[in-house]
Amino acid sequence: MALIVQKFGGSSVKDRDRIFNVARIVANTHNAGNDVVVVVSAQGDTTDDLIAKAAEISHDPSAREMDMLLATGEQISISLLSMALNEIGCHAISLTGWQAGFRTDRAYTKARITRLETERISSELERNRVVVVAGFQGLNKLDDITTLGRGGSDTSAVAIAAALHADRCQIFTDVEGVYTADPRKVRNTRKLQEITFDEMLELASLGAQVLNNRSVELAKKYNVELEVLSSLNPVPGTVVKEVAKMEGMLIKGVAKDTDVAVITILNVPDEPGTSFKIFGLLAQKNINVDIILQSTGRDGKKDISFTCAQGEAETALRVLKESAHYADVSVDTTCAKVSIVGAGMQSHSGVASKMFEAMSNNNINIKMISTSEIKISCIIDRDDADKAVSAIHDMLFD
Amino acid sequence: MALIVQKFGGSSVKDRDRIFNVARIVANTHNAGNDVVVVVSAQGDTTDDLIAKAAEISHDPSAREMDMLLATGEQISISLLSMALNEIGCHAISLTGWQAGFRTDRAYTKARITRLETERISSELERNRVVVVAGFQGLNKLDDITTLGRGGSDTSAVAIAAALHADRCQIFTDVEGVYTADPRKVRNTRKLQEITFDEMLELASLGAQVLNNRSVELAKKYNVELEVLSSLNPVPGTVVKEVAKMEGMLIKGVAKDTDVAVITILNVPDEPGTSFKIFGLLAQKNINVDIILQSTGRDGKKDISFTCAQGEAETALRVLKESAHYADVSVDTTCAKVSIVGAGMQSHSGVASKMFEAMSNNNINIKMISTSEIKISCIIDRDDADKAVSAIHDMLFD
Repeated sequence: MALIVQKFGGSSVKDRDRIFNVARIVANTHNAGNDVVVVVSAQGDTTDDLIAKAAEISHDPSAREMDMLLATGEQISISLLSMALNEIGCHAISLTGWQAGFRTDRAYTKARITRLETERISSELERNRVVVVAGFQGLNKLDDITTLGRGGSDTSAVAIAAALHADRCQIFTDVEGVYTADPRKVRNTRKLQEITFDEMLELASLGAQVLNNRSVELAKKYNVELEVLSSLNPVPGTVVKEVAKMEGMLIKGVAKDTDVAVITILNVPDEPGTSFKIFGLLAQKNINVDIILQSTGRDGKKDISFTCAQGEAETALRVLKESAHYADVSVDTTCAKVSIVGAGMQSHSGVASKMFEAMSNNNINIKMISTSEIKISCIIDRDDADKAVSAIHDMLFD
Repeated sequence: MALIVQKFGGSSVKDRDRIFNVARIVANTHNAGNDVVVVVSAQGDTTDDLIAKAAEISHDPSAREMDMLLATGEQISISLLSMALNEIGCHAISLTGWQAGFRTDRAYTKARITRLETERISSELERNRVVVVAGFQGLNKLDDITTLGRGGSDTSAVAIAAALHADRCQIFTDVEGVYTADPRKVRNTRKLQEITFDEMLELASLGAQVLNNRSVELAKKYNVELEVLSSLNPVPGTVVKEVAKMEGMLIKGVAKDTDVAVITILNVPDEPGTSFKIFGLLAQKNINVDIILQSTGRDGKKDISFTCAQGEAETALRVLKESAHYADVSVDTTCAKVSIVGAGMQSHSGVASKMFEAMSNNNINIKMISTSEIKISCIIDRDDADKAVSAIHDMLFD
C-alpha cells in the first residue's frame, strides 16, 4: 500500500462529466489499496469569472479581499468532487487550504507556504477516507486566507506529498506527459518516460508550460517523485525525479520562448566595474537578466547586450537611460529564444554543432548564444522560431 | 457613538449597482460616527446555482459537503462588498463565519450557534474598520464549516448584535418595514413604527415573511432591538423591541397562512387520556399541531380536529391510521388561517367580535377558532382568505 497525491487542474473538473471522470481515477487508485490525497483547482472559468466580478467593483481591489474571493473557487471544486466520490461509493472528505493545514506568509495573492500541519489530513486518511484538498490556498498568521499565485495548486500538491512522504505525486493535465517539443507544432515528437528535476526546470522556464517551476523546485528540494499524465487518457505519463534513466537520449527537449526582449547598450566604458554597475542597477529593480553578450573593447568603449522578459524591458530601458553613462540604449522585441535541454549534453560537443547546423540549413541567423551544463540557447528572429524548433528537433531526434 | 449591526439579504447585493448601494448605506452609518458590523447573504441566485451544481452530482449529497459548497456564496459577497467599501473610501475587512468566531453544533445544513468568539470582530472595530461578516455560516468542533439553515443570516446578525451589545440590529429587506397586512394584497395598510417581539413572532409564523422567527426569538432572548427597513428607500422602518409604543393601535396586523391542513378523527373514545395518546403519537413524529378542536362527547364517542402544516399532513394521517383506534381519519387541504395579532387585544373583547363581524358581512364561514393572549385565528375556506384579510383589515383599521 502506497500513499499517492493526485492533482487535477481546472479543466479536469470543469463540469459534471469531468468531475465524475476524476472521481473514477481517484476511486480506482484508492480501490487498488492506496491512500489517496487529491488536490484540485477551481472549475474551468471560475477564477476568471470571480476576477471579472472584482473588476466590476474596483480597478485595484485589496489583495486580501481578492484572496478571500478567489479561494471560493477551489472550495466549490472540493465539495463537488467529494460528493461525486461518495456517489460512486468511495468515502471522501473535502478540506479547504486552512483545514488541510497550509500556513503561509502574509503575501496575499502570491503567498509562500511556511508550514504544513498534517494532523487533519493524516487523521482522515487513517479513517480510510480519500482526502480532497483545495489547492492554491492557505492561511497566514493573521488567520486570513491567502492564495499561492500562479501554479499554486501544483505547489500545494507537492507540499502535501513532501510533508506526508508520499510515494508519488501525480499531476494530471490535458497532455499525456512531457514531450521532446510541443506536439501541436513539431512532427515526430516523443513523450519522455523520465526526466530529471533540473531538465524539467529548464524546459518549464523555456515555455514548455506543463509544470509550474515553483512546484518542480519544491519537488527537487524534498525529492518528491512527480508524474505528469493525462486525466482523459489513462496511459503512463512522464516521471520527474532526481536521477532519470538515459533512454538513449542525450537531449530531452527542444523549446522556444517568445517572451524575450534584447536590450543593447552602445559605447559603455571598457573598464573594470562596468558590468557590475549595469547589472546592479537592473537587479535593484528586480529585473531578471538571462543571456548577456559583450563586444570586445575598442577605443576604450564596448557594447553590451542582454535579454529579459518583455514585460520588464521598459523598466530596464528607463533605469539605464536615467543613468547618465548608459543613455545610448535600444531594445529589440522581435526576438525569440530556442533551446535544447538535456543533462547528458555537457560531455557531448557534437550536440551544439548539430543545433547550429540545423539552423544554418534553414538560413536562420543566430544573434546570441548561451550555454549551461544542461542547456544551449540561441536568440533568433521571432519569425524563425517555429521553423528553428522543428529543424533542430528533426536533426536531433530523427 | 453607537455600535450598529446591519444585515443585507441576497437581493440587496445581487449585482454591482446593488453592492455599491449597500456600501453607501454602510459608509453613511460609519461616517456618522458609528461602529458598524455588516452581515451579508449570498448574492441573488448564487445559493440556488450552487444547489443545482450539487444536484447534478448527487440526489442526496452529504450534508457536510453541502455546507462546504454553500458557504462559498457568502464568502463571495463579503469580499465584493468590502472591495466596494474600500473603493468609496470606507476602510473595511471581510470575515467568514469561522473567522468572525461563529461556533456551532454539528448539525450540518441547520446548525445552531453555540458560541460567538468576538475577539476578531472587536479588534477590527478598534482599528476603525467596518467589519463585513458572512452570514449563515459557522464552524463546528470538528473544525468543519456548517450553515445555519433558512434565515441563517438574520440569526447571524442578531447573534453578533447580542454578543457585542450593539445599540441596534438593522435588517435591510426589499420592504420598508412591517405592515398591518400584506401591502400587495390589502388596501390602506399601514407601516408600524414599533412592534413587540411576541407580536412579530406571531406575525412571522402566520406567513408575514419579513423576519425569520429564529432570529426574532434570539433577539427577544438577548433583548436586541431590531429594525426592519428597506435597502432601496431610506426611510425609517419598523422597530421590534420588548415594549412597543401603543400608537393607538390595539391590533398590529392581519395575516393569512395558506399552509394549513385540517385533520379530523371521528368517533374516538370519549375518555381520559385520548388526547394525550393522539397528540403523543404526533409529537413522536415531530409534527407541530396548531389549532385543536374537540366536539362534545356523545354515546361515549367524540370527534377531534386539528391543524398542521400541509407538508406534515400525510405523515400525520399515516401515523393515525396505523394506530387501530383512530382509523376513521380524514384531511382537508382547502383551508387557510387568518389571524389578527396585537399585544393589547387581550383586554379588549370587542376586537374578536369585530373580526367575526367582518367575516359574517362577507358570508365567510368560520370552521375553527383559536385564541391566545396576543392573537385570534380563524380557519376558513382558502378561497375566502384574501377577501377575509381585506375585510378584517378594513373593519379594524379604517
